[in-house]
Amino acid sequence: MRTAPVTTAYGHLTWEDVRDADKDRVVILNVSATEDHGPHMPLDTDTVLGMAVAEGVAKAAPEEVFVMPPVPYGFNEHHKDFPGVIWIQPETLIAFVTDITKSLAHHGFRRILLLNSHGSNHPVLDLAARKTVIETGIICVSASYWNLMSARINEIRKSEIGGIAHAGEFEAAMYMHLHPERVVLEKSTTQNLHNADSKFFNLDLAGAGGGSDAYALVVRGIPGRHHGRPDRGQSRDRQKVFRRGH
Amino acid sequence: MRTAPVTTAYGHLTWEDVRDADKDRVVILNVSATEDHGPHMPLDTDTVLGMAVAEGVAKAAPEEVFVMPPVPYGFNEHHKDFPGVIWIQPETLIAFVTDITKSLAHHGFRRILLLNSHGSNHPVLDLAARKTVIETGIICVSASYWNLMSARINEIRKSEIGGIAHAGEFEAAMYMHLHPERVVLEKSTTQNLHNADSKFFNLDLAGAGGGSDAYALVVRGIPGRHHGRPDRGQSRDRQKVFRRGH
Amino acid sequence: MRTAPVTTAYGHLTWEDVRDADKDRVVILNVSATEDHGPHMPLDTDTVLGMAVAEGVAKAAPEEVFVMPPVPYGFNEHHKDFPGVIWIQPETLIAFVTDITKSLAHHGFRRILLLNSHGSNHPVLDLAARKTVIETGIICVSASYWNLMSARINEIRKSEIGGIAHAGEFEAAMYMHLHPERVVLEKSTTQNLHNADSKFFNLDLAGAGGGSDAYALVVRGIPGRHHGRPDRGQSRDRQKVFRRGH
Amino acid sequence: MRTAPVTTAYGHLTWEDVRDADKDRVVILNVSATEDHGPHMPLDTDTVLGMAVAEGVAKAAPEEVFVMPPVPYGFNEHHKDFPGVIWIQPETLIAFVTDITKSLAHHGFRRILLLNSHGSNHPVLDLAARKTVIETGIICVSASYWNLMSARINEIRKSEIGGIAHAGEFEAAMYMHLHPERVVLEKSTTQNLHNADSKFFNLDLAGAGGGSDAYALVVRGIPGRHHGRPDRGQSRDRQKVFRRGH
Amino acid sequence: MRTAPVTTAYGHLTWEDVRDADKDRVVILNVSATEDHGPHMPLDTDTVLGMAVAEGVAKAAPEEVFVMPPVPYGFNEHHKDFPGVIWIQPETLIAFVTDITKSLAHHGFRRILLLNSHGSNHPVLDLAARKTVIETGIICVSASYWNLMSARINEIRKSEIGGIAHAGEFEAAMYMHLHPERVVLEKSTTQNLHNADSKFFNLDLAGAGGGSDAYALVVRGIPGRHHGRPDRGQSRDRQKVFRRGH
Amino acid sequence: MRTAPVTTAYGHLTWEDVRDADKDRVVILNVSATEDHGPHMPLDTDTVLGMAVAEGVAKAAPEEVFVMPPVPYGFNEHHKDFPGVIWIQPETLIAFVTDITKSLAHHGFRRILLLNSHGSNHPVLDLAARKTVIETGIICVSASYWNLMSARINEIRKSEIGGIAHAGEFEAAMYMHLHPERVVLEKSTTQNLHNADSKFFNLDLAGAGGGSDAYALVVRGIPGRHHGRPDRGQSRDRQKVFRRGH
Repeated sequence: MRTAPVTTAYGHLTWEDVRDADKDRVVILNVSATEDHGPHMPLDTDTVLGMAVAEGVAKAAPEEVFVMPPVPYGFNEHHKDFPGVIWIQPETLIAFVTDITKSLAHHGFRRILLLNSHGSNHPVLDLAARKTVIETGIICVSASYWNLMSARINEIRKSEIGGIAHAGEFEAAMYMHLHPERVVLEKSTTQNLHNADSKFFNLDLAGAGGGSDAYALVVRGIPGRHHGRPDRGQSRDRQKVFRRGH
Repeated sequence: MRTAPVTTAYGHLTWEDVRDADKDRVVILNVSATEDHGPHMPLDTDTVLGMAVAEGVAKAAPEEVFVMPPVPYGFNEHHKDFPGVIWIQPETLIAFVTDITKSLAHHGFRRILLLNSHGSNHPVLDLAARKTVIETGIICVSASYWNLMSARINEIRKSEIGGIAHAGEFEAAMYMHLHPERVVLEKSTTQNLHNADSKFFNLDLAGAGGGSDAYALVVRGIPGRHHGRPDRGQSRDRQKVFRRGH
Repeated sequence: MRTAPVTTAYGHLTWEDVRDADKDRVVILNVSATEDHGPHMPLDTDTVLGMAVAEGVAKAAPEEVFVMPPVPYGFNEHHKDFPGVIWIQPETLIAFVTDITKSLAHHGFRRILLLNSHGSNHPVLDLAARKTVIETGIICVSASYWNLMSARINEIRKSEIGGIAHAGEFEAAMYMHLHPERVVLEKSTTQNLHNADSKFFNLDLAGAGGGSDAYALVVRGIPGRHHGRPDRGQSRDRQKVFRRGH
Repeated sequence: MRTAPVTTAYGHLTWEDVRDADKDRVVILNVSATEDHGPHMPLDTDTVLGMAVAEGVAKAAPEEVFVMPPVPYGFNEHHKDFPGVIWIQPETLIAFVTDITKSLAHHGFRRILLLNSHGSNHPVLDLAARKTVIETGIICVSASYWNLMSARINEIRKSEIGGIAHAGEFEAAMYMHLHPERVVLEKSTTQNLHNADSKFFNLDLAGAGGGSDAYALVVRGIPGRHHGRPDRGQSRDRQKVFRRGH
Repeated sequence: MRTAPVTTAYGHLTWEDVRDADKDRVVILNVSATEDHGPHMPLDTDTVLGMAVAEGVAKAAPEEVFVMPPVPYGFNEHHKDFPGVIWIQPETLIAFVTDITKSLAHHGFRRILLLNSHGSNHPVLDLAARKTVIETGIICVSASYWNLMSARINEIRKSEIGGIAHAGEFEAAMYMHLHPERVVLEKSTTQNLHNADSKFFNLDLAGAGGGSDAYALVVRGIPGRHHGRPDRGQSRDRQKVFRRGH
Repeated sequence: MRTAPVTTAYGHLTWEDVRDADKDRVVILNVSATEDHGPHMPLDTDTVLGMAVAEGVAKAAPEEVFVMPPVPYGFNEHHKDFPGVIWIQPETLIAFVTDITKSLAHHGFRRILLLNSHGSNHPVLDLAARKTVIETGIICVSASYWNLMSARINEIRKSEIGGIAHAGEFEAAMYMHLHPERVVLEKSTTQNLHNADSKFFNLDLAGAGGGSDAYALVVRGIPGRHHGRPDRGQSRDRQKVFRRGH
């Protein structure tokens, strides 16, 4: 028998709950990807980490947010040489996400956070957020979760610049904290693509500046399968990042 | 530490697992909706039930299937007067699902089941399946899960024809079996829209024939919010349907 | 000199006739296909049969319907290995049909029947009908004509289940009734793809249940060119189906 | 019983007939419109006249052409204030026609004529023809039928410049020749929008030059409903144009 | 320091200038192409000539027009075998131009001229103009500049019919008048594709009639690279056309 | 008479020049916007500045680059309340730019720089670059020119953080350096929207980090019309930025 607790899980609400909800709550929609994360981490890494951040926020501010069911597929065609990768055309993903945000605006919600947990979704969600603002007048922002916590990451990181990247120290640490049984760390190897001499090219998620524009250019050609130092994610310190959520 | 069990959860695989997987496994993709289900059931009803069926199949045949992360949003704009409903344009949903199936075909999978758990998704997934077949040559079929088990449903049903419909006996029984704490059955009321005199109009999910074409015409105008007899879903018999899965 | 008879042919109306017409009439739009129908029947079979049904209805109820000029091309790319087949992309066909229905709604018509006479158009027209309802608020339904008369068909059929299918007994009988000079029955052969042991697969147009989802999977691979028993369509009984129209 | 005559009607062919056909035949596809043609002529005027021209050509050169089932809906949203007008979005019409031409190219046909019988379809069919050429490499041209016979029209015309326009002398004469019972000439009035002083604006179908670009600008604002002098179309001379077909 | 002169260059206006501008001015948007023009003329020929005409008009009527920044890319995929050609899909170009015209309508402008300077843009701009009229209600016309001045061209032409075509006498004369240093006339050769015996095929820009429909069919297959007699463009007479602008 | 100089202006090349060109040259395509830039600067500011940077690069490295004709319209619908703004739908702009880059790849060019000079074009060009890489395999990157020179800007800036923004010190200085007669500096006022207390919101073009995601949210609601301190752009120091190009 349903005991009607206040919940932050949008999917657990009834339509009457939504009718009566505070429309100033921030509705968080995680958009991730189903994609290779080295030989040591599962295809759902981005979804698991993105939803963990979203639910961490919800736990910290249960009166202020709702968390939507996630969109677990993203824009990553440049990864398609890795078995298992599912890629959505960017125009389709923009339309899909914008249908969700416009539905929310239709019901009166005024504040949406598109919480990105996959690098190349960034321009897709930026456009989806802008289109939502233009077409509905509500507030909608997109952000990659690591950008919201880069200061904290850098406080406790163990690897050099370049070690916090795709399937590297940071992502491995988060996933192991959540589901250690799904990470096979001994399969990981170190691969640092960061070039300290480049002013433009930067693959460290917590490093200064963007560099993401150039990213698509290299990933298809490289022999390795993950970037960074997942081995640095083994220590107990990995809990430090996660506990603070964002 | 990951213990590398064989799993049917596609998201838990690594890219190497997919590389080495049997490509004749049936890959099941549930497409559902986030939508009102009466005052007594949550917005995620279709996703929860559809994934329960998919995972039930996986449990029964762990060597033969993979279950994809779900697409929890569907084609249901005619429900938009109910707070909380998220609707995707049908062309966008066709494109989104087809991007997923074409990715799977790219990786060598040959058999896909689009497992529908929301009524009006049916033509969308039918087209997505046909487009997949045409464009990739692999086998892809769509099916609404209740059509795969209607004989079993009718064996154990308690309500008259019309009682097994949107948020009615059947869906309520399944959700209560899975998560009783999320269903508030005392909020439900009986509403039977079935017209036994009509040769063409049939709203019982387990009844003979289709009738879905006419469905969109009436749902926006009716004062009630669910169709069928959710109160008949209370008995222990609800487990009977579910155990057989499909 | 035009004698201004009341007509059910929409194309024969002037704009003043439409202005003054009863907008509660059901406007029937046949959507068919230009497609192989065995060695014994012409490419226009679906258009000829669909329009015959539409015009039969109009004759029976001249005050209640209008019949639109037909859309003689459909969604059948899976037939493209047969010379002569013209296929329209499903998104284009949805848009084309919806432009027609929205024009009719613009002029005040309130009831539209999308009368399908080609199997795989079904999901396309279902979506077109739903989009029309959602976007205009008028009533629009789609139906394949054989589904509207399956009881009558089964009363007088001569072939076993599976004999009433693509270019089989039923279609051959109808076309011969209308234009015997265009059917070369001696070129036909019997081919029954129906599998009585399958719970899911059913190719008889007048049989119970749908089965159309699986249809696209097989048609490209089979050596034969039509399904069913066209030879059973020779008797005078073929008139029985047709006279009752629907 | 089908007597297998050689026919120019594409729809009457079987798939084996197409397989064996001379692929150098010109395949003629008439694209018209369903649209107001004054109070004296039916909505199907453009289809009836366009198909009459196509079939006239086929009769004159039975070994050299095939005539496709027509596309009876066109690009004419600027007419939508007249009851009965059905308008297709231009992008949709381009896609629909191009799907037809690409299907024909797939089957080996090398020469297609898009025979236009509705003024504002002209740029749509021009683009469809160009896209067909670019994408398939076959020959595809578009032409409005009156442009192919303007010299002949001017030889026998009775009205001044401006009298041969939408629903005017020429179209009325042709329709009356074909189906006199559907034209109510006494309802027609004279309305000549031609401006002899303009270097750029020319509404006579058989006049020199184009002028069609400016056409869309005026039609919605004018009080009248047809352009030209339909009364001049009454004489027996109307047969002169038609007999020569093109 | 800006001296705030009245200017006809739209790009030089501030937003306050637009706010205060006379909205009955004709806003001219040149759409051209970046395309081969023989071995003797640059890829930007169409843009340079089109903008020269637009600016000539602006100089002659400074109170009546604004000239927009040009769209220097057009619809010319059939030229793609020539190195350097940039081609835009026609649907994309229609959408791009229509976004511009709808923006202008949003700001209150009521009269737009789409000034074409590349042959095959003609149907694209025709549709863009018609869509603008239909969707905004303002006046929008498209015209290829040579059609607006064909009488004047024929007064002073030196080459026979067929000599005034792509990269021929006329275009060479105009470009040399404007930027003689960018034309290498001695590289040009004469190539006249005009067929005086054809009633339908006409490649002279200043000749009577259209013929453009058939144009796309031949350009890919011909060995030469320009049509007409650029050598006839050498004389001082070339200034005569240009001075009169239109 | 053309003297055939080596030129970096792509538009001044003939098709033979492109045929013979070094395909490793970086082809620079500036995409800007036509948009309000305060009461003191023209609508073409982004195009003038972007092309000045591109041409500065070409001057510095004449053997290594080509500069394309610019795309002077961008993605800025959120500015549409300012008279004169022309906005392109983002999907259309992605398609338009990608048609250009794919044409270049077709001709063998291997390195393209999409040089952005309008803030909100950033995600559009990022996606266009990624699509180009995915579909053609060549190298294509996008960059906003100010990001390529932020270190240099900060060396010589005079205004505080927030002073270098839309139509502020930096853009005013550059435009005045190029065309002083088109800037009316005395019309400018200071408006600094930068919030030093925010970790996420940053409107200084040369400041650390992005912040652009949140930008669209505020611009429509603010009373002012430019951001930053254009008055600080008056000094001779403005030449310092420009001379170094990037």
